[in-house]
Amino acid sequence: MIDFSKFELDHVAIAVESIETSLPFYQALGFSSHHIEDVPSEKVRTCFLSLANNVSVELLEAVGDESPITKFLQKRGPGIHHMCYRVKNIEAVVAQVKKAGIQLINETPRQGAHNCKVVFVHPKSSGGVLIEFSEKMSDS
Amino acid sequence: MIDFSKFELDHVAIAVESIETSLPFYQALGFSSHHIEDVPSEKVRTCFLSLANNVSVELLEAVGDESPITKFLQKRGPGIHHMCYRVKNIEAVVAQVKKAGIQLINETPRQGAHNCKVVFVHPKSSGGVLIEFSEKMSDS
Repeated sequence: MIDFSKFELDHVAIAVESIETSLPFYQALGFSSHHIEDVPSEKVRTCFLSLANNVSVELLEAVGDESPITKFLQKRGPGIHHMCYRVKNIEAVVAQVKKAGIQLINETPRQGAHNCKVVFVHPKSSGGVLIEFSEKMSDS
Repeated sequence: MIDFSKFELDHVAIAVESIETSLPFYQALGFSSHHIEDVPSEKVRTCFLSLANNVSVELLEAVGDESPITKFLQKRGPGIHHMCYRVKNIEAVVAQVKKAGIQLINETPRQGAHNCKVVFVHPKSSGGVLIEFSEKMSDS
């Protein structure tokens, strides 16, 4: 059985109205570099700010009205959107999670930011928390 | 100037109706150990689950009707409540944050879980995200 406590937290994602207007807060905290990447499959623009223990803060901006971020902002306003665990074998994770009766939003991993394969756990199964599992694909 | 990107994420806190009924989900993910601690000053019971890169998931249960967790659950239901950065000199952090015009909930650090001094940034100042800064006190 996979022990998730052996895994690392990859990032905490924050839904924002605008990356541009949200960055000054993080710059005031001293964050001096960031990485912006569009993820068309998720209809989002992402901005990653790295912390020292290999964790990032991800700012998530909607791209288009059909973005899940648009819906989140309409319902709850800006704030923490999801948390992501970095895993080594996402297919094994999916199998274990399904076996435990935990509902996934997508059982087939899809392409996320940073050349990763990702699946999401439905918040109904995880106490209201949107959880992402992410496996880095080789860059080859 | 303090560079927060040199700091580490300490934990992500999740508001739960009950630690007891929330633990099975995390146990299904393989988390085999946890640490429960009451924090009377915050009117909460906490349960820490450690991840590999020195980050924890903190389950937060209300103690009493006046707990901020009770109010959070009434308003938004269970879910991610706040994120906490581990800092080395909390007084210097407070000074920098105030200088940047960022509003704190408490400017004087108070006692948190794990023998830490903590301050909270008001979500109005941080894009809807409740942010905690925490400095571990010596155990002496």
